[in-house]
Amino acid sequence: MDLAEIVKSLQDFEGVSRKESIENITNKLKNVYNIAGDTLLDFGEDASAIDIGDGNIILFAADGIWGKLMDADPYWAGYCSILVNVNDIAAMGAKPIAMVNILSINNNDIANDLINGITDGCKKFNVPMVGGHFHPDTDYNALDVAIIGIAKKDKIITSFGAEINDKVIVAIDLDGRQHPKFKLNWDTTYLKDEKIVQDQIIAMKKIAEKNLVTGGKDISNPGTLGTLEMLLESSNVGAKVDLNKIPKNENVNWDDWLKSYPGAGFVLTAKEENVEELINLLKEVSIIASVVGEVINDKKLFLSDENSEIVLFDQEKNPVLKINKD
Amino acid sequence: MDLAEIVKSLQDFEGVSRKESIENITNKLKNVYNIAGDTLLDFGEDASAIDIGDGNIILFAADGIWGKLMDADPYWAGYCSILVNVNDIAAMGAKPIAMVNILSINNNDIANDLINGITDGCKKFNVPMVGGHFHPDTDYNALDVAIIGIAKKDKIITSFGAEINDKVIVAIDLDGRQHPKFKLNWDTTYLKDEKIVQDQIIAMKKIAEKNLVTGGKDISNPGTLGTLEMLLESSNVGAKVDLNKIPKNENVNWDDWLKSYPGAGFVLTAKEENVEELINLLKEVSIIASVVGEVINDKKLFLSDENSEIVLFDQEKNPVLKINKD
Repeated sequence: MDLAEIVKSLQDFEGVSRKESIENITNKLKNVYNIAGDTLLDFGEDASAIDIGDGNIILFAADGIWGKLMDADPYWAGYCSILVNVNDIAAMGAKPIAMVNILSINNNDIANDLINGITDGCKKFNVPMVGGHFHPDTDYNALDVAIIGIAKKDKIITSFGAEINDKVIVAIDLDGRQHPKFKLNWDTTYLKDEKIVQDQIIAMKKIAEKNLVTGGKDISNPGTLGTLEMLLESSNVGAKVDLNKIPKNENVNWDDWLKSYPGAGFVLTAKEENVEELINLLKEVSIIASVVGEVINDKKLFLSDENSEIVLFDQEKNPVLKINKD
Repeated sequence: MDLAEIVKSLQDFEGVSRKESIENITNKLKNVYNIAGDTLLDFGEDASAIDIGDGNIILFAADGIWGKLMDADPYWAGYCSILVNVNDIAAMGAKPIAMVNILSINNNDIANDLINGITDGCKKFNVPMVGGHFHPDTDYNALDVAIIGIAKKDKIITSFGAEINDKVIVAIDLDGRQHPKFKLNWDTTYLKDEKIVQDQIIAMKKIAEKNLVTGGKDISNPGTLGTLEMLLESSNVGAKVDLNKIPKNENVNWDDWLKSYPGAGFVLTAKEENVEELINLLKEVSIIASVVGEVINDKKLFLSDENSEIVLFDQEKNPVLKINKD
C-alpha cells in the first residue's frame, strides 16, 4: 500500500466514520453537562472530571462493547470491557478505582463466558467490579461498563492542551499479538504478566504528575491517527505526522496497524524539553514511544512518507469528533 | 382483595421474581468485588462504596431501563433513568454528583425523546450527565446510566444494619399520580417543583448524618414490601408489618400501591428513640413516614391486617435477593 491508499483506507475506516452520529446527541446533552457547577472538563474527553473538593477530582467514564465483538467472543468482550474502561482512566493519568456493569443477556452460556472475561480483566488490571445491574430477559446481548478514577485536580492529562510546536508522540506496547479472532485488537495484556500491565497504568499517572505532556489520549476504535485527530480537534490545532516514525510491530502491515486498538497505546503531545524523560519512563514499562511529528496551527492532520504528504483529516471537511463547540 | 390475595399477588409479582437470576451472576462477580481492598460494603446495596481516603467515600451505582418502558415511552424512560439512579444514591444518604450514560439506538425519533427525558431528569434533580457512550447502530433500544455520589465514610445508610426490635418505617411521598401509561410508576417528581424534589434528597442526607436510621433502601421495582424484604435479607433479619399502617394515597388500590415504584419512597429501620425526629424531617419535604412494624429474629416477613397474619416472604423458601453470602 502506498501513502495515498493508506490515507483513503483510514478515511473510510468504520472506527472513524462511526463517530459521526455522536453530534446530535452531544449537542443536546451539553445542556446538562455542568448544571451543578462541578464538572471540570469540556466535552471530548474519554472521561469527565468532577471536582469533589480538597484538590481531588473523580474521573468518570463509560464504554459499551460492540455487539459484533459480543456475539463473536463473549469472553473476550468481557475482558475488553475492562481494558477499554481502564485505558480511558489511565490515559488521563488517573488511578482507576472501581467499575460497575450493566449486563443484558438472552443466553446463559454467553453470560458465563462474559462474566469470566470480566473477572479475568478485573484481576489483570486490579480494578474491582463493585456492582451493576442485570437484565436477564432481553432479546439481545449487551455489556456496558462504567468506571471511576481519582487524581489530583491539576494533574490530569486531557485532550485540550496540545499547543502549536508541541511534539506529537505515539506510544504503543509493541510486544503483543493480533488477537486470533479480531486482527484489529492489538492485544498486549492478555498474555502478559499483570505486574507490567498495572505498571503501565502507573507510568501514565507519573507522567501526569510530572506534567510531562500537554495532551494525551488512549488509542481506541478510531486507531492511532483517528485518535490523534480527536485530540487535535479538542485542542483546536492540527499536526504533521511522518508515517515512518510511528512505532510499529514488524509483523503487522501498516493498514491493520493504524486501525488497531492496542492494549496499551497512547497519542501524546509534549514540549520538546520533556520528550526524553517521557520516552524513558514509558520504555521502562514496555511501551515504545517516538516523536512522529509536531503540532501546527493549520487544523489538518498531514501524513507524510519519504515520497509525499497528504491531508488525512481536515477539521473543516472530515473531522472525526464533530463536536459543535458553540 | 383480602390479605391472602394481596400476599399471593405480591409473591407472584414480576418485580420480585425477576430478581431470581441475579444469583449466578453475583456469585462469580464476588471474586473481583474487592480486589483492590477499598470496597467498603458487601453485595446487596443499590450502590457500592469506595474508600478514597480523607474520610470520604464515593458511592457508585448503575441501573438499566426496562425494555418495556423504553419501547412504550422513550421520554419517560429517559426521565426515569435519572430518577432511579438518583434514588439509589439518595437512599444511602449521599449527595449524587454525576452520571454517565450508554445509549443504544436503532431509531432517531426514539433517541430524541430519550435525550429530552434525560435532560429534563438531570434538571429536575440537579445532577449533571457528564459523559457516556453511544451505539448508533444497534438493532435494539437500550439505555443504561451509572451514577456516583459522595458521602462521609461513617455517614451512609445501608441495607446491612437493621437490628432486632428496630422499628420498620415506610416513607413515601403521597402527593403524586399513577403515571398515565404506567400505573405502577407512582410519579411524585415530574409535576412537582424541582426545589422540593431536590430537598427530598437532602433530607435523606441529613438523616444519614444524624445517624437516625439503622438501615434503609429506596423502594424500586420489587415494590414496598419486596424492597423491605431485600433490606431484611441483607441484614439477616425478618419483620412483622401491619398492612394498614403503610402510608398510602387513598386513590390507589392496595395491590397497585404495594407494587408501585414511587418517585420518592423508602423503607427504613430505626431505633424507637429516633423515630419521631425521622418522621418530622421527612414530613418537611412532603414524605409521609409511619412506623409499620418491627424487626424480628425469625427470617420471615409477616404481613398482617385486622383479621390475620401471613408469611409474605421466607428467606428459606422465597427470598427476593437470593445472594449467596458464603
